[in-house]
Amino acid sequence: MKRFIVTGHLASTAGNFSLNDLPGAGRMDVLCRCVNASFFLSHDFRRDVECYLVLCGEPEPPKTVMFSGEKVRYLSPDERSAGSLIKKALALPARSEFRESTPGVYVRKGGLGQVLDEFECAVLAESGQDIRSAKDLPEAYLLSDHHNFSEDEMSLISNLPAYSVGPLSLHGDHTISVLNNEFDRRRAGWH
Amino acid sequence: MKRFIVTGHLASTAGNFSLNDLPGAGRMDVLCRCVNASFFLSHDFRRDVECYLVLCGEPEPPKTVMFSGEKVRYLSPDERSAGSLIKKALALPARSEFRESTPGVYVRKGGLGQVLDEFECAVLAESGQDIRSAKDLPEAYLLSDHHNFSEDEMSLISNLPAYSVGPLSLHGDHTISVLNNEFDRRRAGWH
Repeated sequence: MKRFIVTGHLASTAGNFSLNDLPGAGRMDVLCRCVNASFFLSHDFRRDVECYLVLCGEPEPPKTVMFSGEKVRYLSPDERSAGSLIKKALALPARSEFRESTPGVYVRKGGLGQVLDEFECAVLAESGQDIRSAKDLPEAYLLSDHHNFSEDEMSLISNLPAYSVGPLSLHGDHTISVLNNEFDRRRAGWH
Repeated sequence: MKRFIVTGHLASTAGNFSLNDLPGAGRMDVLCRCVNASFFLSHDFRRDVECYLVLCGEPEPPKTVMFSGEKVRYLSPDERSAGSLIKKALALPARSEFRESTPGVYVRKGGLGQVLDEFECAVLAESGQDIRSAKDLPEAYLLSDHHNFSEDEMSLISNLPAYSVGPLSLHGDHTISVLNNEFDRRRAGWH
């Protein structure tokens, strides 16, 4: 199982945002593209992936929305489709445990600390170890949206192993595409 | 200069589609994501890229919309932003030569044949040479949307050199992200 965890520092935690203005919902568009990059193949779907969106915007931060590649339905590649499923998840009253809002999409209260308690995560940073030179790839990766990690977040993650996909700082979804490609190549015996 | 050329087999050639339903405009969402992947870096922009969208849908196929990374303005990462600039380009009466519709975005009549007359292109195919093993990377890449290349297109491209980014068939935008990453690494001396 591969896991991609994306922090949306201003992403709305209410299910009343407009699908016609995903950037206006605390840059929800960034998170929607990360969902796309996590799962979609050409005429196929990555069932071995989970994507966690840690939403830290108003009015009820933090919440975590999780997409399960194994179980998700009704997800299309466009941003609006992922946005619609996130919106439905946020419209459900969140509790401390995950609740399913639509097939394969879940919501709970809680943020980054809770996810880090559950999984051994690596963090993506330009100064990290090149993923191509890593003997074994970690299974869970923490990414940020268009904002850097906050001081509070840094205190949680400063001891995590750091990896890099390349010399330039990429958008989260592009980073996920490169990571998935590296996994694909290793699994198929490409060097 | 890197060039990504994406064929949208059903993509609308009229500027009257709805930004609220990009998939309904002949899967214009696919092309919008390719524009995003071509250009965006985290807090930076790839000025050395051009992205050509070859639109083959009704009512006036084919048309080509070109985004110049050097000159484009008013482009944000979300699908709707690229869709809005494509829509403005298609609202302009197209001629055989490129006309600028908004800064750095251009439209003309004509399709794949014309682009192939102008650039030496490589085609992306799972059976092609692994890009990591290529001594020199081609500068222009031809990709398809969610449909395979047609028989007419195949007759134009069957002699082009073929490259592969990995063992699985990816969406066009994910392929562009992996290609850009390979270019980034080579330029920075990463192996």
